[in-house]
Amino acid sequence: MTQDGPITPVLLSGGEGSRLWPLSRRSHPKQFVGIGGPLTLFQQAALRFAPGEDGLFAPPVVMTGADFRFMARDQLECAGIAPEAVLIEPVPRNTAPAILAAALLMEARDPGAVLLIAPADHAIPDPAGFRQAVARGLPALATGQIVAFGIAPDRPETGYGYIEAGPLLDNTSDPIAGPRRVLRFVEKPDAARAAEMMQEGRFLWNAGLFLARAADLVAAFRLHAPHCLGPVSAALAGARDDLGFLRLDPASFAAAPSISVDFAVMEKATNLALVPYVGAWSDLGDWNAIWRGQAQDDAGVACHGPAEAIGCRNSLLRAEAGGQVLVGIGLEDMIAVAMPDAVLVAPRARAQEVRHAVAQLRARSAPQADAAQRDYRPWGWFETLVLGPGFRVKRIMVAPGGRLSLQSHSHRAEHWVVVEGEARITLGTQTQVLGPDRSVYVPIGTVHRLENPGPDPVVLIEVQTGSYLGEDDIVRHDDAYARSAV
Amino acid sequence: MTQDGPITPVLLSGGEGSRLWPLSRRSHPKQFVGIGGPLTLFQQAALRFAPGEDGLFAPPVVMTGADFRFMARDQLECAGIAPEAVLIEPVPRNTAPAILAAALLMEARDPGAVLLIAPADHAIPDPAGFRQAVARGLPALATGQIVAFGIAPDRPETGYGYIEAGPLLDNTSDPIAGPRRVLRFVEKPDAARAAEMMQEGRFLWNAGLFLARAADLVAAFRLHAPHCLGPVSAALAGARDDLGFLRLDPASFAAAPSISVDFAVMEKATNLALVPYVGAWSDLGDWNAIWRGQAQDDAGVACHGPAEAIGCRNSLLRAEAGGQVLVGIGLEDMIAVAMPDAVLVAPRARAQEVRHAVAQLRARSAPQADAAQRDYRPWGWFETLVLGPGFRVKRIMVAPGGRLSLQSHSHRAEHWVVVEGEARITLGTQTQVLGPDRSVYVPIGTVHRLENPGPDPVVLIEVQTGSYLGEDDIVRHDDAYARSAV
Repeated sequence: MTQDGPITPVLLSGGEGSRLWPLSRRSHPKQFVGIGGPLTLFQQAALRFAPGEDGLFAPPVVMTGADFRFMARDQLECAGIAPEAVLIEPVPRNTAPAILAAALLMEARDPGAVLLIAPADHAIPDPAGFRQAVARGLPALATGQIVAFGIAPDRPETGYGYIEAGPLLDNTSDPIAGPRRVLRFVEKPDAARAAEMMQEGRFLWNAGLFLARAADLVAAFRLHAPHCLGPVSAALAGARDDLGFLRLDPASFAAAPSISVDFAVMEKATNLALVPYVGAWSDLGDWNAIWRGQAQDDAGVACHGPAEAIGCRNSLLRAEAGGQVLVGIGLEDMIAVAMPDAVLVAPRARAQEVRHAVAQLRARSAPQADAAQRDYRPWGWFETLVLGPGFRVKRIMVAPGGRLSLQSHSHRAEHWVVVEGEARITLGTQTQVLGPDRSVYVPIGTVHRLENPGPDPVVLIEVQTGSYLGEDDIVRHDDAYARSAV
Repeated sequence: MTQDGPITPVLLSGGEGSRLWPLSRRSHPKQFVGIGGPLTLFQQAALRFAPGEDGLFAPPVVMTGADFRFMARDQLECAGIAPEAVLIEPVPRNTAPAILAAALLMEARDPGAVLLIAPADHAIPDPAGFRQAVARGLPALATGQIVAFGIAPDRPETGYGYIEAGPLLDNTSDPIAGPRRVLRFVEKPDAARAAEMMQEGRFLWNAGLFLARAADLVAAFRLHAPHCLGPVSAALAGARDDLGFLRLDPASFAAAPSISVDFAVMEKATNLALVPYVGAWSDLGDWNAIWRGQAQDDAGVACHGPAEAIGCRNSLLRAEAGGQVLVGIGLEDMIAVAMPDAVLVAPRARAQEVRHAVAQLRARSAPQADAAQRDYRPWGWFETLVLGPGFRVKRIMVAPGGRLSLQSHSHRAEHWVVVEGEARITLGTQTQVLGPDRSVYVPIGTVHRLENPGPDPVVLIEVQTGSYLGEDDIVRHDDAYARSAV
């Protein structure tokens, strides 16, 4: 057991992940996507630090953007985790204000609260091993230390920042794995320096993982980043409950500086300790990192989905959507990622440039820059199958218990054909339950609602017809999710 | 005007074009696809040799496979060309038997008939210039010559066969552009020999284009390839009319050897003349040829559709389907072709290997190996938008005048929503006409028919539900196109 603890994980999940485009999009960023298996990175992070038999962790605090609040809550629910709180960052302000908000919240709830600050979009394949590392950091909290976890490098990586480890924090520490003093932060090095640092052995990757008492974090902000404190305190004081989410006050939070926690606090703190972690870790920061982390054949080729690599070497071929075939012939050190609405091809060495491509698409108003093909809503999701002159065909999934708003449209009629589950459909004053192979017609202007009262997902095909088919042709008469927009 | 003529073009359009996968598929091969503009290669070929004011050409004879007969006829109709005949090759037997069948047919119809044998999947950007070259070949027919058209090389190409030109056929010929004797055929050379041949100046590319009297072609087959004559004559004698197509007798045609006309006849013929053509020509044989023929920016990058090339050089980026975005970063000498159901990435230098990839996909039973997403039928086309457990959603286009068979299904029900045009729909004994936004339900077992009696295309969305959704769940009660299968 721990002297402090249990630890409240603070899951940072507000990022955009544009370097993993087209899989990751602003509307559905990488932490909420499954990169390899059935679990998303966010779910993996939540489960890695989930309350368990060892009593190490308490329920998490989730920091995320307004657009992702339902996604985060649903994914936690599917993973069987009830959060301590889901805080909505009304505008993105980098990591420092988000961490400070979580620390202030938890300090108020429990003056002795201990937090593990954890980005929710990383991969740590050995969660048990990492939990042991976290436990090794706990004793240092007694002396008011903030503990950074540093990853022992397995290669001279130029894409990460490093932390230089100093002597052991005290004589009682484990001489190999115990906490050490921090000498300094090192910016991303060039290749030569990275090789030197690897040889010197005392440089660890900065993974953005920190353990501290909430009060000590707040104190460090007060000392090193006092300009953050006012706006973030006000944002928390003005936060309002929004269907169980805690929405930070937008105007106050927007007044906070956009700054990373390293730059604002950690690089200046003198009470920073470092616990090494010897094990696999990846920030999954770009497609090259995905290639490295994925199972490869003897030629270094990693395939995902229905991909065929013919005479390829050291390449990543991913067909993200079921059914789409990706064929690579003679590729060397390349990345190819295929989705039905967007395809990326680039050398591995230029994986970092993907975000520029996204910016370029955005400048040209290509919807694929930011919008995922599947649009997630609090009640489930929908996707456009085909958009033609005067019509649009959508596939709609309503999760069990999901309930769309009571709505009407001024310019379009809708045909619904149920293909899975049992849908409860309200048209005007009439309500009926329709199963597979049943259909209904919603004329222009008719008030209607779609719900899933059953235990299984409802899937239906919607054929819209009309002169205008934009998502903004909607009048909400009542909404279970208190939304003013769609 | 011409001493013989008008010339009957024989459009060879039975090929598979697997090296242009995924755009070209066995079910919809390259000659029937638009590579650049709105016209397909087949239409371009038909229009290049269309009857015109110069009286040079008569209506064409089309040689094609059974699967493409409606495609060929519809595309001719859209191009405003009424063919002399559309002959169906029941099995593919390479060019010699197809050409002999056309020659026998036309010799029977007109003993003085003159034929231009023309592959229907090549690009000749200057049709007027090429027609002049054809006209220059006509005088040689008086002495029973077969005239090959040779393309003056603009690069030391190793991918084509060559023909070596000899002295002028006679003193009255144009000393630059007039017919010459053929010295020999040269197989695809290596790079060094190709460079030598280009410098020597008397070697022209063999484009598979030949002009001859039908009787002289038949005589050449009789002399050099007598084993072709029996089976092909029998196939023509046993041919039957099939809704205006002339279907060669399958058993007889199958008995013909599968052999190219060069190998069977041209390389042996002593009455072969050669007319040079100085102008652009391409066999569009692989993606490298497409790259060469497409407009390129200063860095040699050719884009098609919504493709973004960032820092690329000498590469081809094609997004074939509207709306799909293809992003290439830092590509050098690469080809990337994206379609919603299949993507190809390969170095230009390995473009020839695409057919091996197709074979590999075929071996794994991937439907994308052979089937195009859009399935063309005599009445129009359909495509599957989504296939899920127990349901399938299709978009169906019925061309004006199109009429699906009177049919029923044993395992699936169908919902139809009309989104464009006016559809005539028969259900059991009832017939109704439905316009956009109208829908109808076809229960399992109900005999039904869909027709387009109007002047505009009909588009409808079909939602199938049922335990089995294969295309073979169909009972045809009556079919305007005399089909036994779908």
